[in-house]
Amino acid sequence: MPFQQARRAERMNPSIIREILKVTERPGVISLAGGLPSPETFPVEAMRAAAERVLRDSPREALQYAASEGYGPLREWVAGELTAQGLRVDAAQVLITTGSQQGLDLVGKILIDAGSRVAVESPTYLGALQAFNPYEPEFVSIACDDDGPLPQALDAAKGARFLYALPNFQNPSGRCMSAPRRDALMAKAQAIGLPVVEDNPYGDLWFDAPPPAPLASRWHEGTVYLGSFSKVLAPGLRLGYVVAPKPLYPKLLQAKQAADLHSPSFNQRLVHEVIRNGFLREHVPTIRERYKMQRDAMRVALEKHMPPGCRWNVPVGGMFFWIELPEQVDAMALLPQAVERGMAFVPGAAFYADRPLRNTLRLSFVTVPAPSIGEGIAALAQTLKEHQR
Amino acid sequence: MPFQQARRAERMNPSIIREILKVTERPGVISLAGGLPSPETFPVEAMRAAAERVLRDSPREALQYAASEGYGPLREWVAGELTAQGLRVDAAQVLITTGSQQGLDLVGKILIDAGSRVAVESPTYLGALQAFNPYEPEFVSIACDDDGPLPQALDAAKGARFLYALPNFQNPSGRCMSAPRRDALMAKAQAIGLPVVEDNPYGDLWFDAPPPAPLASRWHEGTVYLGSFSKVLAPGLRLGYVVAPKPLYPKLLQAKQAADLHSPSFNQRLVHEVIRNGFLREHVPTIRERYKMQRDAMRVALEKHMPPGCRWNVPVGGMFFWIELPEQVDAMALLPQAVERGMAFVPGAAFYADRPLRNTLRLSFVTVPAPSIGEGIAALAQTLKEHQR
Repeated sequence: MPFQQARRAERMNPSIIREILKVTERPGVISLAGGLPSPETFPVEAMRAAAERVLRDSPREALQYAASEGYGPLREWVAGELTAQGLRVDAAQVLITTGSQQGLDLVGKILIDAGSRVAVESPTYLGALQAFNPYEPEFVSIACDDDGPLPQALDAAKGARFLYALPNFQNPSGRCMSAPRRDALMAKAQAIGLPVVEDNPYGDLWFDAPPPAPLASRWHEGTVYLGSFSKVLAPGLRLGYVVAPKPLYPKLLQAKQAADLHSPSFNQRLVHEVIRNGFLREHVPTIRERYKMQRDAMRVALEKHMPPGCRWNVPVGGMFFWIELPEQVDAMALLPQAVERGMAFVPGAAFYADRPLRNTLRLSFVTVPAPSIGEGIAALAQTLKEHQR
Repeated sequence: MPFQQARRAERMNPSIIREILKVTERPGVISLAGGLPSPETFPVEAMRAAAERVLRDSPREALQYAASEGYGPLREWVAGELTAQGLRVDAAQVLITTGSQQGLDLVGKILIDAGSRVAVESPTYLGALQAFNPYEPEFVSIACDDDGPLPQALDAAKGARFLYALPNFQNPSGRCMSAPRRDALMAKAQAIGLPVVEDNPYGDLWFDAPPPAPLASRWHEGTVYLGSFSKVLAPGLRLGYVVAPKPLYPKLLQAKQAADLHSPSFNQRLVHEVIRNGFLREHVPTIRERYKMQRDAMRVALEKHMPPGCRWNVPVGGMFFWIELPEQVDAMALLPQAVERGMAFVPGAAFYADRPLRNTLRLSFVTVPAPSIGEGIAALAQTLKEHQR
């Protein structure tokens, strides 16, 4: 091959999740693997009506090049929503991105040099590891308990470029950080001068009570905040946003220009047209209700079927159960057997920057309906029992 | 600020073109600056009908997460089109990107290390410089004549990671490389083992005869080819594509996953729905006709108004005239005076990796209609005469 690849290309690897998703597209496999929202929650009628209006009322603007910052009214909407949640944000700090995955890429691009240290939770979101990896950081895994990262563990990350944290219904662990833990973590981060990148794709998907205020509300000038429309509207539109402290914003914007000029104008106007009049206040509760019911279906199935020696917490929002299997079981070795029995999960090892706990796995309770969840868990339990025999 | 920025962030600068565009959004300014397609060419009715069909027939797929490679039928379509143009391409080599700007970013990401040499035309596309710049290359400007890069000049780029070239109706110079020059250039590139990144956003916008076959057809395994739907359909959908030699494809795909997971499913299905039955065979000729007429309006106005000592070639396709002013005139100093008189252009210096010719400027003839083109050129000529007084 005449091409010489960059050093960073060697660090890129196929996404294990996406490879698994390909296998599980096989008909008949109940996939609890992917983090795909339930398509039942997509507001198709509202989208259809909004697309019609956008292409009738502002077709030229929707189809033309546009500002890299994003569509003004959508940025205003984001600023308003976040202000209501306790953040101090004005629209000038909001950058609309092509999904929040792009937000992670842009953050990595402007903050990580080869060899920079980046602190992550343990386990952490695989997509963030993939976004940061090409910029050649050294990851520092922060010890966590069921309430999130341990504040005193941040000492190991002093001098790192940032801590990446997902406080609400974390992917993959499902855990939600308590308010006192948020207070303690952010006090410690600020004390040691460690900036924070807060990722919040799931915060709206709470079941009984909203999560505590964002980490960013505790240290505005030290936190970059990422949000997404993928889980409350539809991921196929690829729209998310980054909120950055004002001194950091211009570089993020320039990175965005270089990456794709701007996110699709049509999609931005479409989403704004759907949500401008309070649509999400009616819509998101229906998602919560559905996902809570599916969470319960999975909880019941786990209690009913799983053999002794397995451990999980019941998530109070989001999309995932995180299962610890008996210590000697390697979830990666279990996967092909599970697929053979007609179900799929994601082995937990994929979610660690280092020292993976191989006896863990992630289950999504939102993609398939309740009866299939029961079947899938029964198949998993059966696989596990056979495997242990 | 608690954030420490990456070294590459220092190399990022606001896009001069986008900054100018902001100024020229002032009502009353005739902007010949931006490379915005004429909104008259956007097939709004076809888009509306296609959006309706996509959201009626496959709403769940259009709104759900999808494969990073892109929508299968759209990849097939691209492969079919390019094969008809003389390339050997199968769909497995096609990656759908969020505009071809993202293609440039991904290519830079997998091929450029800090300090790598990258060869570019002189002048070259500003957006490519911006896409590559964060990966910290050293640019090597290749000497060009009116027919494009001089083959013998490639010797200076031996060992570079690639040559970036835009052979059809180049942005900014408007020039189109002849077939013999393509032959000679690619023979030389292959002889010295210098891979080529061929960018072709404008190739369909020819006026009298199609351009010669792509550079890639002369060295398939050594060329990455980029295309776009922005100029033949609408840029606001942000869809382009990269065609890569098979050994390079997996890394490009992984870079794509890390960057934004995938380009919007809805947009990909929408575009495919519009074009699947030969729509572009009817539509693109109407764009060509319009742009040829506007090119003629600008040619006539330039001949009528411009003072002696200015030089330009008449482009045979694309969107741009490239003007050389008398040697002592700095187009950057001219710009505020031109805006004062009610017109805008892009100073040519922005398009050079090094040693800018400051007495150059770029004019777009596609964004505003013919009568405004005449007025804009008259204002430019008047400004120039005043400036030289």
